[in-house]
Amino acid sequence: MSKTLVFGHKNPDTDTITSAIVYAYLKQQLGVDAEAVRLGELNNETKYALEKFNFEAPRLIANVKDEAAHVILVDHNEFQQSADGIEDVQITEVIDHHRIANFTTADPLYFRAEPVGCTATILNKLFKENNVEIPANIAGLMLSAIISDTLLFKSPTCTEQDVKAGEELAAIANVDTAQYGLAMLKAGADLSDKSLED
Amino acid sequence: MSKTLVFGHKNPDTDTITSAIVYAYLKQQLGVDAEAVRLGELNNETKYALEKFNFEAPRLIANVKDEAAHVILVDHNEFQQSADGIEDVQITEVIDHHRIANFTTADPLYFRAEPVGCTATILNKLFKENNVEIPANIAGLMLSAIISDTLLFKSPTCTEQDVKAGEELAAIANVDTAQYGLAMLKAGADLSDKSLED
Ligand SMILES: [Mn+2]
Ligand SMILES: [Mn+2]
Ligand SMILES: [Mn+2]
Ligand SMILES: [Mn+2]
Repeated sequence: MSKTLVFGHKNPDTDTITSAIVYAYLKQQLGVDAEAVRLGELNNETKYALEKFNFEAPRLIANVKDEAAHVILVDHNEFQQSADGIEDVQITEVIDHHRIANFTTADPLYFRAEPVGCTATILNKLFKENNVEIPANIAGLMLSAIISDTLLFKSPTCTEQDVKAGEELAAIANVDTAQYGLAMLKAGADLSDKSLED
Repeated sequence: MSKTLVFGHKNPDTDTITSAIVYAYLKQQLGVDAEAVRLGELNNETKYALEKFNFEAPRLIANVKDEAAHVILVDHNEFQQSADGIEDVQITEVIDHHRIANFTTADPLYFRAEPVGCTATILNKLFKENNVEIPANIAGLMLSAIISDTLLFKSPTCTEQDVKAGEELAAIANVDTAQYGLAMLKAGADLSDKSLED
């Protein structure tokens, strides 16, 4: 079987990048030749999270049709937010937490969308359902995604499930969520005006 | 919270009718005021299955907009196969095993599609994930759906997951799958030419 690419949306955020890495890892454990890729430049918050948990940035791709025949979408489903060439490849799975629109397939697929605050909250369930253990650094990435999407559990989109997943993942990653979360969100804020630090 | 209607596609088959009944039951156990309804006349196979396991036919509805504000779709997602008025109500969940097309929502929802042979195979997982026990007569309906959609596990759409779910459900329902399955499929075949029975 040829390689399956896993990616989130254009203008990637922390959930999109980490969910691609995390779900590619889970699929690899399940025997799929999966590779996480990205559709755009990393923001500073995401760079901070990857560095903290010792991950490289996924490879940047242009037109997906030139790269693979099978793809998995995370953290999005609308084609206009997805890779160029998405209409020309087979989407085998979607894991997302957004409304569904501008999405269509010719064949049945695994499509898992839930009305929660973050893709990582759904991925946390998928590890359990597949009986795959979450390594500490993978848990750190998932926690980073939840902190980012829910603004440290304060956004109106944050659900009880996100809070519970965050607690579980912080324990596995052995991270102080409030302390790390504030540092990560601060790294993402634009502090180009240095007088703030004066 | 107002009532949530659960229904499958127009021109209902056994999976559509039984999955509406079964998923409404599961949602009721989880505290949701759910009612199974149908969009068309029952076929003889479905009547046979409902009678065997002592269920009434769900209520027939016309335009869904006149009935409820919230709905759950089973065994379909394409709007042209769904209830009249579907664009005017909120779809809170979809449980399906078909390709995705002509489907859109304004808000995030629970959308669970899997590339398996029958909706009941996915519902079997949802009972487990929600820690709800499957009563014997509900298991009988689910087994009927799998037998119908996979033609007793012989269709090209039948997966290992359908076979395994069928075995589990037959044990709970205490049914001889081959014997019951042939009788159900035969009830659904058009035997109007009585000379066959001569
Ligand atoms: Mn995102
Ligand atoms: Mn997200
Ligand atoms: Mn059907
Ligand atoms: Mn079906």
